[in-house]
Amino acid sequence: MQRLLVTAAAAFIGVATALPAAAQFQKPEDAVKYRKAAFTVMGTHFGRLGAMSQGRIPYDAAVASANADVVVNMSKLPYAGFVDGTSGTEKGAPKANIWTERAKFDAAAKKMQDEVVKLAAASKTEAGLKASFGPAAAACKACHDDFRNP
Amino acid sequence: MQRLLVTAAAAFIGVATALPAAAQFQKPEDAVKYRKAAFTVMGTHFGRLGAMSQGRIPYDAAVASANADVVVNMSKLPYAGFVDGTSGTEKGAPKANIWTERAKFDAAAKKMQDEVVKLAAASKTEAGLKASFGPAAAACKACHDDFRNP
Repeated sequence: MQRLLVTAAAAFIGVATALPAAAQFQKPEDAVKYRKAAFTVMGTHFGRLGAMSQGRIPYDAAVASANADVVVNMSKLPYAGFVDGTSGTEKGAPKANIWTERAKFDAAAKKMQDEVVKLAAASKTEAGLKASFGPAAAACKACHDDFRNP
Repeated sequence: MQRLLVTAAAAFIGVATALPAAAQFQKPEDAVKYRKAAFTVMGTHFGRLGAMSQGRIPYDAAVASANADVVVNMSKLPYAGFVDGTSGTEKGAPKANIWTERAKFDAAAKKMQDEVVKLAAASKTEAGLKASFGPAAAACKACHDDFRNP
């Protein structure tokens, strides 16, 4: 049987490392691929928490915490991939207002990051997961509504 | 200026959460997309360590550690995505021997995971990064050579 090994971070120290985002990617398409990948991984684990919070899969404290910890780790990554010149008009692509309303976008990202930290703490109990999943999902949706092409 | 926020895990407790991998994905293509995404994120950060270890970008202890910590986190994720029936013959696709030589594949994955933990510890100094990047890259390559279509 195949197994998933997940790591729960028991303690964190946040290290803010300032780097120009564009300098981290050789080509804009690398940044696009990276941010999509980070959202894919985050969304996979977030979706499992959603299934558990809605009773579609049984609540399991260890599984919930493990998935939530991955979500917290992943939530910090994709934003470096929003480099200039990578907006689009197709479904799911970032709107150009990310770059004209950057402070609002950054605040929306920060809101999501804060909500998933709360989710990770709360998901140690079923009631906590159920109470904190909605606000986290709402933070995802708010940013999508404002900055992602439907 | 856009910024990358990275989190360095100061302390970890590894939690092995056993779940049937296939049960975690609704469709095999979801598993494929997930594992590719996890490798994309891991490879991006691993590549930056390579550039630093080879002097293509300046060594910076905080940046090296932050990237290495992401690599460690990511190294645990993709293997859940190797669900049955998702081998292929195209370039980069997993070979079918992953499923016929599963113990060997799992050992190769474990070797990589162990090497990147060493890399994360060593990358706190430039000499350590330079000494430990090669063995970690070799662990990646060994698995690619055996289990990935060239």
